[in-house]
Amino acid sequence: MDGISKQDNLVVVLVATRNPLNMGAAARAMSNFGFLRMRVVNPFEASFREAKSAVGASDVLLQAEVFASVTEAVADCVLVVGTTAVGAREVQHTVHNAEDGAKLIGKKVAAGRVAILFGSEKFGLSNEDLSHCHWLVRIPTRIEHRSMNLGQAVAICMYEVARRLQAKGKRKAVAKKSATAGERERITGLLMETFRASGYWKVGHGRLLEEKWRRLVRRLQLSSEDAEIWLGMLRKILWKLKD
Amino acid sequence: MDGISKQDNLVVVLVATRNPLNMGAAARAMSNFGFLRMRVVNPFEASFREAKSAVGASDVLLQAEVFASVTEAVADCVLVVGTTAVGAREVQHTVHNAEDGAKLIGKKVAAGRVAILFGSEKFGLSNEDLSHCHWLVRIPTRIEHRSMNLGQAVAICMYEVARRLQAKGKRKAVAKKSATAGERERITGLLMETFRASGYWKVGHGRLLEEKWRRLVRRLQLSSEDAEIWLGMLRKILWKLKD
Repeated sequence: MDGISKQDNLVVVLVATRNPLNMGAAARAMSNFGFLRMRVVNPFEASFREAKSAVGASDVLLQAEVFASVTEAVADCVLVVGTTAVGAREVQHTVHNAEDGAKLIGKKVAAGRVAILFGSEKFGLSNEDLSHCHWLVRIPTRIEHRSMNLGQAVAICMYEVARRLQAKGKRKAVAKKSATAGERERITGLLMETFRASGYWKVGHGRLLEEKWRRLVRRLQLSSEDAEIWLGMLRKILWKLKD
Repeated sequence: MDGISKQDNLVVVLVATRNPLNMGAAARAMSNFGFLRMRVVNPFEASFREAKSAVGASDVLLQAEVFASVTEAVADCVLVVGTTAVGAREVQHTVHNAEDGAKLIGKKVAAGRVAILFGSEKFGLSNEDLSHCHWLVRIPTRIEHRSMNLGQAVAICMYEVARRLQAKGKRKAVAKKSATAGERERITGLLMETFRASGYWKVGHGRLLEEKWRRLVRRLQLSSEDAEIWLGMLRKILWKLKD
């Protein structure tokens, strides 16, 4: 796969972005580095309209795809990466710095579509959003002033990934086809059903348990073929449990 | 010299910046990465006032020093670096990419003050401005869309220089304690029992299925904590299957 199609395999997902200037800035940074696929989840409608109608709005923004949920926005992705301003000790996920994260992303875009999620300016990504992520990237800002402007954070991430793709342009991709987020979500769904049927899911667990297991399933290094095996196994167990 | 005084030795010089939002964004990116010394040359007065009076204006901006010329702004600097969007063939200077440039800057800030110049949004640095520079840095954007937003360009430069100044030891991702082979084997064993109880394990599967699942479990990126969760879930399902 050549550099261009790898760049086509990276999507930036803006979740609940509020500020039209930030949307425009994110789109511009993407375009600077040759990443043209933006997806927006649940944007503030007025802001999104304003961003698109701004003078000099980037094609990236005009062609952005809109989704109602993170689940749908990442369904075709083999790797989902979240971004966070907080340190590794405060989150459940493994946290990579931007450089190491970009290296991992650079490898993965040869195998399929990769999503990088950016949260809202005010709150970042929610725990529910994060539960869709395999791991997180943090740009190493100083503790006294951690939180970055959205457009600038996108710019640094695009810069880092673009560098990896340029450096790796000549190498051949040999990765096995990875399981997509959609396949993983089906596994998570069947697990939840199994938990209910087996009594593992008790009253009071609810959402937290589902998010925990979604994270666990994201952490599996599953090929598409592996995913089929898991799904087959779970269906069988579930069928027996409901017997 | 420690990291902090090295950071103190870097100054960002904005030359003839027009847009107050860009000034604010540049200041914010500097602050994110611990660079607190901004100098502005010949700014548009109204814009500069507006930027400083904005809600949440950074201390970096409030304490920015104003100069009438580049000559004065860089007088105390041992190295002056210009930034440019154009390629090496079109300018007189040596042009480094951001990574190599940051390495050179990282070495130099131990010896004295270093200035990085950013030009106006519309015209960049003039030939006169450039004549003060030892060499130039270019962020490798794509040819079709070269020109970066000022705040984003500052962010990437600060990010690159900050990385050089950071201690090497901090760059590793903080990983959780990994599951041991023993824990993985217990998961595999419980899976096998579950398969038998659920009928997933049919006659003829035998050893191959067990090996396949052992490999699958080995491929999971499991922490020790994760392993406990998996084991608890499997025990519960198994208990229910045998009910």
